[in-house]
Amino acid sequence: MTTRKSAPEVAAGNGLLHRRWFLAHGATLVGAGGLGLLAARPAGAEPLGVPAWMKAPGTNMSAYGAPAKYEKDVQRIVGGTPNVVGSGVSFTPHHRLHGTITPNSLHFERHHSGVPDIDPARHRLLIHGAVRRPLVFDVDALLRYPTVTRIQFLECAGNSGTNLAPQPPQAPCGVIHGLMSCSEWTGVPLAILMEEAGVDKAAGWVLAEGGDAAAMSRSVPLAKIMDDAFVALYQNGERLRPENGYPMRLFLPGYEGNMNVKWLRRLKVVSTATMTRDETSHYTDVLLNGKALMFTYPMEVKSVITSPSTGLALHGAGLYEVTGLAWSGLGRIKRVEVSADGGGSWADAALAEPVLPKAFTRFRMAWRWDGGPAVLKSRAVDETGAVQPTRESFVRERGERMNYHNNAIQAWAIAASGEVSNVYA
Amino acid sequence: MTTRKSAPEVAAGNGLLHRRWFLAHGATLVGAGGLGLLAARPAGAEPLGVPAWMKAPGTNMSAYGAPAKYEKDVQRIVGGTPNVVGSGVSFTPHHRLHGTITPNSLHFERHHSGVPDIDPARHRLLIHGAVRRPLVFDVDALLRYPTVTRIQFLECAGNSGTNLAPQPPQAPCGVIHGLMSCSEWTGVPLAILMEEAGVDKAAGWVLAEGGDAAAMSRSVPLAKIMDDAFVALYQNGERLRPENGYPMRLFLPGYEGNMNVKWLRRLKVVSTATMTRDETSHYTDVLLNGKALMFTYPMEVKSVITSPSTGLALHGAGLYEVTGLAWSGLGRIKRVEVSADGGGSWADAALAEPVLPKAFTRFRMAWRWDGGPAVLKSRAVDETGAVQPTRESFVRERGERMNYHNNAIQAWAIAASGEVSNVYA
Repeated sequence: MTTRKSAPEVAAGNGLLHRRWFLAHGATLVGAGGLGLLAARPAGAEPLGVPAWMKAPGTNMSAYGAPAKYEKDVQRIVGGTPNVVGSGVSFTPHHRLHGTITPNSLHFERHHSGVPDIDPARHRLLIHGAVRRPLVFDVDALLRYPTVTRIQFLECAGNSGTNLAPQPPQAPCGVIHGLMSCSEWTGVPLAILMEEAGVDKAAGWVLAEGGDAAAMSRSVPLAKIMDDAFVALYQNGERLRPENGYPMRLFLPGYEGNMNVKWLRRLKVVSTATMTRDETSHYTDVLLNGKALMFTYPMEVKSVITSPSTGLALHGAGLYEVTGLAWSGLGRIKRVEVSADGGGSWADAALAEPVLPKAFTRFRMAWRWDGGPAVLKSRAVDETGAVQPTRESFVRERGERMNYHNNAIQAWAIAASGEVSNVYA
Repeated sequence: MTTRKSAPEVAAGNGLLHRRWFLAHGATLVGAGGLGLLAARPAGAEPLGVPAWMKAPGTNMSAYGAPAKYEKDVQRIVGGTPNVVGSGVSFTPHHRLHGTITPNSLHFERHHSGVPDIDPARHRLLIHGAVRRPLVFDVDALLRYPTVTRIQFLECAGNSGTNLAPQPPQAPCGVIHGLMSCSEWTGVPLAILMEEAGVDKAAGWVLAEGGDAAAMSRSVPLAKIMDDAFVALYQNGERLRPENGYPMRLFLPGYEGNMNVKWLRRLKVVSTATMTRDETSHYTDVLLNGKALMFTYPMEVKSVITSPSTGLALHGAGLYEVTGLAWSGLGRIKRVEVSADGGGSWADAALAEPVLPKAFTRFRMAWRWDGGPAVLKSRAVDETGAVQPTRESFVRERGERMNYHNNAIQAWAIAASGEVSNVYA
């Protein structure tokens, strides 16, 4: 704890500092002079009064807690579809959150016909089709099977799709990129349930059907089902929330959100993809030539700076933390770089441990803002070597008509006033 | 995916099966016959009707979600102190939860004078005493500093203390062991703030004071403050809840809960421990000879089976998952063993990845219950080599008068009826 450095080391243009600041014992690199952030004010002779809330006992314990009343604006941003009951989205306000776990109450939503009110005592999951013995499971039956617990992200295929509009949307970061969340999920591996039913492994596909009024249906390759898929029953420790599939949902780590069928009621083992409405009229990727890609399952490597970002503002030149989320449906994040000069130069961000496969990874970078205009970007690389594309290259290859699977680099412009805007830079 | 085993491998007495069942691709060990659990029922010719909730659209998106109405009994169990407003505890219902993350609404509580209603815009943190420049931080100032994100458990020193009573308490597992929780915390490393204030590292101690009516105060070794301590601002992604110290709390990974001072308002760097009321009249460990140990900070290696446990019951002989939590304030969990014959024989449980330091680790074991009486136990070992003690050895060394830091092995007796009871075995 005795090493000292007199000044932070610059790692890239326009004030980006070396990520060593965020590694263990970062304070030893700060030096005896401190950061000199001056965000704190010197204490006077009588620095602290006794506030009113210390003068009388506070409130009692509670059975189920709630956020502070001062945080009442930290909510999902709801976007409905006019005249269609229960169809729409709500966005996770990532610009107001930190860390990597999304609280259950703020997990994003995408419903095609609303949230069904399912009595768990009456809900059944049927496994049938090309199996030796079709089986029906209720919740209690499932709870006797071996379980797995995994921290995994979930991202709607349409997340960040508005960034393909001709002009960059000026909306909070959580609205542009809020159709993604990350939770600790616990459930029963489908490989075990499929073996229990005596699956015909040559069959190739599984039709998954939800218990909502849309009977949301998707085809899933049997190989994925037998690999790391599971029937999720718990989310961040407690039972699934209604809007996340209570009492059970399909979970396919890394695959587009829509395939992780909520309110799961049926898995039919079949020999070919079943071409359901939800994988033909929706969730296909329209290309430049008018043709569409189908079955584009994994959400590819991506990152976004959550602070600073639209919805927030800087208050004067000086040191700031630049932080955000990175993830890949193909595995672990290997590297995240940050630029403060619009991509002219890049420096490695610090990644928070543990870096888990198919989960959010929090990245951080110290930045000494000089008070002038700046453009912040982040660029992620995953363990397969895939690099997050620029918007320009993404659009050149896929066009702007397609609004699924947009994993292009996000650019935030910082004005001299400290205001943040969304730019295509 | 082609390896087959005809029968599960027995790993210890009274039906404990090998942990390979819980490792990757467990299904290949199940064999083509499945588990034969028969928890599921064979599907008939018309296996699934169309339930009422699929016949009309469900409810719309919501700004801040809540649990299903069918889960309304999954609550903290509140235990107040008669005639003392705001003093008491509430317990995390671990027997109703799974995974390792505790939802914020179910995080345990221990308050000495209730939950203060703190306006974050008016809250201040003062760092003073043996520092070159005393500083006052408000929330906005803190949010400009570099942050860390870590998954850590928090355990009250008094957790499991009722198991030192002469007769084993017959209460749900969550009441006996529910003064512990585990969250992903994000905050500012204290080493950075202390350097900013110009700490005198020879001083040795720090007095931490809370902004509640009890002005909860504890002395913390400066070495801990400069090692891994931080000022927590976010819990599982969102800002701290009021009952967990909103807008900021001290976090000392692995140390007894009480020291992680909530509503943190003051850190004074001093040369000796300040002998506050909360470290002299409370939170000392009374020994057999009437003397008391002070400053027993780390919560030592421990584990508890959360299912089956009191508050739950088994429904007929057959296969069950035995699962629970293990943790150590001194580092990572290295090993958890489970016994189904009261400690006569033991087998290794599977540990869910990632196994993080000073965090809950979920362990699992498959158990074929023969329907006869059984006694389940778990025994954890941490990376320092420390082994969780038996109740007998714990009591022999520390006596039954002390009710802090009880990390003894928990025994659950299973009756032929499937009922579970707490036993000293």
